[in-house]
Amino acid sequence: MTIPKALTLNATFQFQQIGVIRSCYRQKFGIPRQPGIVTAAEATLELLPPFNQENLVRGLEGFSHIWVHFIFHQTMDEGWRPTIRPPRLGGRQRMGVFATRSTHRPNPLGMSVLELQSITSGSGRLILHLGAADLLDGTPVVDIKPYLPYADALPGAEGGFAPLPVVMADVKFTDQAMAQCLRYEQRTGRKLIQLIEQVLGQDPRPAYLHKTIGRQHGTALWDLNVVWECIDECFLVKELEQRVEQ
Amino acid sequence: MTIPKALTLNATFQFQQIGVIRSCYRQKFGIPRQPGIVTAAEATLELLPPFNQENLVRGLEGFSHIWVHFIFHQTMDEGWRPTIRPPRLGGRQRMGVFATRSTHRPNPLGMSVLELQSITSGSGRLILHLGAADLLDGTPVVDIKPYLPYADALPGAEGGFAPLPVVMADVKFTDQAMAQCLRYEQRTGRKLIQLIEQVLGQDPRPAYLHKTIGRQHGTALWDLNVVWECIDECFLVKELEQRVEQ
Repeated sequence: MTIPKALTLNATFQFQQIGVIRSCYRQKFGIPRQPGIVTAAEATLELLPPFNQENLVRGLEGFSHIWVHFIFHQTMDEGWRPTIRPPRLGGRQRMGVFATRSTHRPNPLGMSVLELQSITSGSGRLILHLGAADLLDGTPVVDIKPYLPYADALPGAEGGFAPLPVVMADVKFTDQAMAQCLRYEQRTGRKLIQLIEQVLGQDPRPAYLHKTIGRQHGTALWDLNVVWECIDECFLVKELEQRVEQ
Repeated sequence: MTIPKALTLNATFQFQQIGVIRSCYRQKFGIPRQPGIVTAAEATLELLPPFNQENLVRGLEGFSHIWVHFIFHQTMDEGWRPTIRPPRLGGRQRMGVFATRSTHRPNPLGMSVLELQSITSGSGRLILHLGAADLLDGTPVVDIKPYLPYADALPGAEGGFAPLPVVMADVKFTDQAMAQCLRYEQRTGRKLIQLIEQVLGQDPRPAYLHKTIGRQHGTALWDLNVVWECIDECFLVKELEQRVEQ
């Protein structure tokens, strides 16, 4: 076939940031591998100048969900890998990078479908309020599109090696940790207990640690480090530590 | 909130082409506004070096559908527009660019979910065969991801101002056009008649032309120019012309 003359093959394209994500996820460890699982993880998307004009999102409020296209900024300097060990396969099998949603892609482009709860504006700021996000705080956004159920929802599609959602595990708290959580919730208004239950319940451990017992883990949520351990098939939250943001 | 130090706001990102689309659509006019409508429009995605290695797509064959992320290369030099008149609203109402799938976006990024029919390789070429594509021939591709029904299919999502798929209109052929179509199908093996029925049936005319009658249109499909007219609520194919590819 003839190659269209208008375009050189192996072209490059410059993308600019249009917005930034603010979320409870301050580190990669603990972030659910798909959106919609951790419903307590609300996030915001702030549009940056010159994209912080209300007319750019006119009509978007009629959609319950949006696609957010973003950059895997924390891993992009590590480059891409031809094959990946998906967590769903227990980390034992290698799959091609294009058969996964891995962050280590030739172009570090991520996409998430997120619930659009509301849009607020004022003082020159335009903010989309999102539900059940799976995005790191500070994530640069490059595009927003409406979710069109008639075009995007294919419930009959075959899901390859990841056909089912994560099964949630039990999460328990020590008396000390529960008291700390309740004080934090009262002070900040954030649903911390539910957030911890959902983040730990989907088992954030990498596959190679799934069989280790008695190992202490720390997961960064908001300005906290949540200290926990896997004991008897459940996750025990031991205490909360104040994080020093770098 | 504090701005993460690792990232400058308003950053830019360089994306590289990983593949190229080959399709029957040689001009923007006539391309369906969503994939999945024109099932006769098969297309291929050829991965370009160094991405033409089989291990990069290992496991992808287990998925019935894939997301293809591409560049709106034909309109990207025209820049973006803050608001758009979506065809579904009859071209009368303006919506924010982020509330539409318009090609004139701040970053010219497109996404389509497409049926993955097969993957073939040989002589250093790696080709994905796709069904019901809505992509222009020569479209540069920047990413491929598996379609995950449990995460991506939200049949209950609310679809704003575009809740329903297109209603297909009747397409008829003059005797001359039908004879030309049959000869073309016999010579090339391409399902031209079905392709024309589906492409015209979803009414490719811009909204401002919906009420004009007796106007002759030309739609480029493969190496042909399909000449047609809208008469009595149906589309009449009058003849096929050989196109000279530029």
